[in-house]
Amino acid sequence: MSSPERPSRLAPGSTIGILGGGQLGRMLAIAAARLGLHIHIYCPDENAPAFEVARDKTIASYEDKAALQAFAKSCHVVTFEFENIPLNALDLIEAHCPVLPKRQALEVTQDRRIERKFLEELDISVASWAPVQSLAHLEKLVEQGLCPAILKTARLGYDGKGQARINQGQDAKEAFAQIDEQPAILEALVPFERETSLLLVRSEQGEIAFYDCPQNHHIGGILATSTVPCALSPELIAKAQSIGRKIADALDYVGLLTIELFIVTEQGNSRLLVNEIAPRVHNSGHWTLDACLCDQFENHIRAIASWPPGSTRRHSNALMTNLLGPDVLDWPNLASKAELCVHLYGKQGAKEGRKLGHVTQLSPLEE
Amino acid sequence: MSSPERPSRLAPGSTIGILGGGQLGRMLAIAAARLGLHIHIYCPDENAPAFEVARDKTIASYEDKAALQAFAKSCHVVTFEFENIPLNALDLIEAHCPVLPKRQALEVTQDRRIERKFLEELDISVASWAPVQSLAHLEKLVEQGLCPAILKTARLGYDGKGQARINQGQDAKEAFAQIDEQPAILEALVPFERETSLLLVRSEQGEIAFYDCPQNHHIGGILATSTVPCALSPELIAKAQSIGRKIADALDYVGLLTIELFIVTEQGNSRLLVNEIAPRVHNSGHWTLDACLCDQFENHIRAIASWPPGSTRRHSNALMTNLLGPDVLDWPNLASKAELCVHLYGKQGAKEGRKLGHVTQLSPLEE
Repeated sequence: MSSPERPSRLAPGSTIGILGGGQLGRMLAIAAARLGLHIHIYCPDENAPAFEVARDKTIASYEDKAALQAFAKSCHVVTFEFENIPLNALDLIEAHCPVLPKRQALEVTQDRRIERKFLEELDISVASWAPVQSLAHLEKLVEQGLCPAILKTARLGYDGKGQARINQGQDAKEAFAQIDEQPAILEALVPFERETSLLLVRSEQGEIAFYDCPQNHHIGGILATSTVPCALSPELIAKAQSIGRKIADALDYVGLLTIELFIVTEQGNSRLLVNEIAPRVHNSGHWTLDACLCDQFENHIRAIASWPPGSTRRHSNALMTNLLGPDVLDWPNLASKAELCVHLYGKQGAKEGRKLGHVTQLSPLEE
Repeated sequence: MSSPERPSRLAPGSTIGILGGGQLGRMLAIAAARLGLHIHIYCPDENAPAFEVARDKTIASYEDKAALQAFAKSCHVVTFEFENIPLNALDLIEAHCPVLPKRQALEVTQDRRIERKFLEELDISVASWAPVQSLAHLEKLVEQGLCPAILKTARLGYDGKGQARINQGQDAKEAFAQIDEQPAILEALVPFERETSLLLVRSEQGEIAFYDCPQNHHIGGILATSTVPCALSPELIAKAQSIGRKIADALDYVGLLTIELFIVTEQGNSRLLVNEIAPRVHNSGHWTLDACLCDQFENHIRAIASWPPGSTRRHSNALMTNLLGPDVLDWPNLASKAELCVHLYGKQGAKEGRKLGHVTQLSPLEE
């Protein structure tokens, strides 16, 4: 790789700002602290779990101009733990301080229509899809044969929220009501064999390091487990990495990038379809905390601080299980299990479906 | 093991107090956060590096009664990152909140004379030693043949501080002046072959889990490196563990306990001498952060929270190197080394000999 001069690395003692104070921000903050970097968390929720492991905190909305400016002025670089940052907020911050990953990663991933077009322009396969503007439009698409399918809001969906399934023509109206008649896409249901994800870290110089691909299992649209290794052929691994590299390079991406992938097998041949791009650390990479030399959170921090990637080598096999809602009440039992690494996010309440922690079962590689 | 009823475990959301805000307190705080436990750091130094990863902080001296009481009232259990806690401070805290490890661990380890007697009563080998009250007394001991030897202050020594070597009779006066004529012990110089340490965690029920013993290398009285594995015969490992168990049981110890050991080989036979007991997490266990399923910091937190021990299994070989003073200025180079896990403590300044970080080089077990 041709290597232009490396931008100067952010020295220990510098301050990294994070937009968002959930569990991802919390784990990013811990990783940064380990490298001697200070953290400033910006989040509207006064009970945000990331606050307690950060040196500085701002409790304010993403529309609060003064708070955003003061935040930006206190930081050497700003990053985010979720993709739905208002672009106006970015404008204000970028006037004072760089934001990484760069804005185009957010512009592409905040809208499924733009994301799908971006992928198609890169010649990367996705499920058959069409944008949906109105019920009449939706009904026409279903009639034309885009069914069974999933109707997904173009913006602001996550963890299966903002989605409705359409099995036959008469479901269209109900589905469109279910997503509050928002602009959407209709996507053919993919008869996937398995789900995986590609996590990579890319530096400002374009160096890329890949993590092993986990096998992901969702229940009700929410990730339940990620398992490594995921039995993928060398060809599929190479294909996944080439997709990841294409996307990361096209976005001039800096940081940890996640690509959710479907594995579709037809007549014995397997291929990959991209389900979603997440411009951030990702739930399906939580096992890297316990099973890799350098975890996804530290690698994100390293990249945005212009440090070279840490080793993504995996020293153990791992099964990560999310603790959703009341699952977390089982902590006394989980705490007793040998070889189980427990991570609790310090959130209050145990609301159904809410991500409150995860556990990772490790085992030696050879097993 | 007979198992009386288990004391109730400290639930996520509880608060653990830590006396001391250095790097050990910082790494304990991070481990606690990972388990969903809140941390309150008590430290007189307003720049204490542990503050920034803790939810609550108190900046006050260990003589500040009101501050100690308020601190104790805010915590469910209190622990410490250094053994020289004034016992008066403990009295005040214990009126409101349990302190773990228990007070006897501090009483024994705060004074080398008491520590040596405690070990001898347990029939555990230490180097030949004698208490020293005065210069005349010291000169007599040297004359009687306790030489070459090290003069060590009875109290408040660490990292080779408060020590002076006596090679021959005429060194005595200078050595005694060097330690400010404080009460001391004179200890025969041990012609050790190697140094190791035993790190164990003991629960309130007396369950014990041992970490692998590292080989430790000191320079100028300060730990330079710890390496695992340390080639120890199964007999010596069993002996080290039996010493550790005896000490931990005698102290009814709860938490992470460290025993520094000399390996002395004479005529082909190796034996162990105890150099020092540290009632806390220890620099020679920092490699557990990157090389074990559950590190020493989390295991200390688990024990004082009445959680069962996490797995001490080591998944990788490791070489931990301390970053002392200006060593830390080499961070751009260290950050670039493959397979090197970097830990920086966020301290200001790079004073000679000060512990500012450490790095751990990992390699697969089979290598």
